[in-house]
Amino acid sequence: MTKTMDLIMFSGEYDKAMAGLILANTAREMDVEVNMFFAFWGLSLIRDPDHLSNEDKTLYEKMFSLISPKGPEDLPLSKMNWAGIGKRVLLDMMEEDHAPRLVDFLKGARKKQVNFYACKLSVEVMGFKKEEFLPEVEIVEAKDFLKGALESNIQMFI
Amino acid sequence: MTKTMDLIMFSGEYDKAMAGLILANTAREMDVEVNMFFAFWGLSLIRDPDHLSNEDKTLYEKMFSLISPKGPEDLPLSKMNWAGIGKRVLLDMMEEDHAPRLVDFLKGARKKQVNFYACKLSVEVMGFKKEEFLPEVEIVEAKDFLKGALESNIQMFI
Amino acid sequence: MTKTMDLIMFSGEYDKAMAGLILANTAREMDVEVNMFFAFWGLSLIRDPDHLSNEDKTLYEKMFSLISPKGPEDLPLSKMNWAGIGKRVLLDMMEEDHAPRLVDFLKGARKKQVNFYACKLSVEVMGFKKEEFLPEVEIVEAKDFLKGALESNIQMFI
Repeated sequence: MTKTMDLIMFSGEYDKAMAGLILANTAREMDVEVNMFFAFWGLSLIRDPDHLSNEDKTLYEKMFSLISPKGPEDLPLSKMNWAGIGKRVLLDMMEEDHAPRLVDFLKGARKKQVNFYACKLSVEVMGFKKEEFLPEVEIVEAKDFLKGALESNIQMFI
Repeated sequence: MTKTMDLIMFSGEYDKAMAGLILANTAREMDVEVNMFFAFWGLSLIRDPDHLSNEDKTLYEKMFSLISPKGPEDLPLSKMNWAGIGKRVLLDMMEEDHAPRLVDFLKGARKKQVNFYACKLSVEVMGFKKEEFLPEVEIVEAKDFLKGALESNIQMFI
Repeated sequence: MTKTMDLIMFSGEYDKAMAGLILANTAREMDVEVNMFFAFWGLSLIRDPDHLSNEDKTLYEKMFSLISPKGPEDLPLSKMNWAGIGKRVLLDMMEEDHAPRLVDFLKGARKKQVNFYACKLSVEVMGFKKEEFLPEVEIVEAKDFLKGALESNIQMFI
């Protein structure tokens, strides 16, 4: 029987997003079905940088959209970010080791058919539109996520 | 057979508390048994704002009690809190969408009989008294939590 | 059948490391097999303070090693750290209650044979050498961790 891993991607930080996506890519290589449920800050990771929009947004939603990261490479570190310097150092260290970057892991996850879900409530509160996300992202409720997670082999809150 | 979800509520931040409580409420609506084990900063979420006390506390415990959030609505955001401004914006965005607030989700969880446990060691170190918590909170050891979690369907550290 | 708990130790913060190690110690006392997979910032927890080295490191790796915590007691709090003052207060509160410190829980976990794994990719990116870690630490890939976690009873991302 196929095994399943369900991850809640809550944090919206570069390093944590990386951890989640490395797990997702690795699990897919082991033929594990992977569901990623993006909520709150985690939604930044699946915004499509080419399809940001301010149409039909309230003032707050516009402000929020403005200060939110515009896509994966724009996410800060969860610590030692130091206004971007710490992140720069980490990226350079990764390059020295020829380690893939976050965008590469995201691309890999998409190619390997990781299932991407966006939390409906978070999407509404933050005022995002469906078109602002990567095209394969499906907007679902917490209930839909839980239904699957109750039967899955691994669940984690990242 | 009844399914079970066990959450460790560690963080004590408004947005993460919200995520945990939304999962808890949703799971209860699906007839899933829910255990929330509050530890460290997470204890702030189940303090009863009407029953804070400084009796029998050491100086450090008093200081700590003073700077700790006094209840759910007093918790900061895990990011973009900006001394409360970012949180204010999020709350206003939630209001625009008529989304419930943290207190509402907490009220819902209590009404739906989510089981609330406080980590004994954290309670002792932080110097809290049993009376300072919501009346249904039971103080238990990590062992008691793990016993249940080993048999449950979902476990997450939030 | 033996039950198993698998923890990803990602955060590298004093309080979260404590939470993870308390769970690990408690689980071992219940005869649960425990695997801790240290990744990213979490690697700081299993550095051997007596075996730090700068040999064969690039400039970035040296800088990174310099600013990284040198061992468990050197980790900051995840919040209210205030340049170490908040942590000092917490440590004093723990002492008042004769609660063990992080090093004690780490020592306990080692004595109780918790399995310590370091994430290969993180080790390479951060430029750590095998000799810089506690001697029992094994360096493995995410795949090895996932293989076990898919069969385990509890998995958490800390």
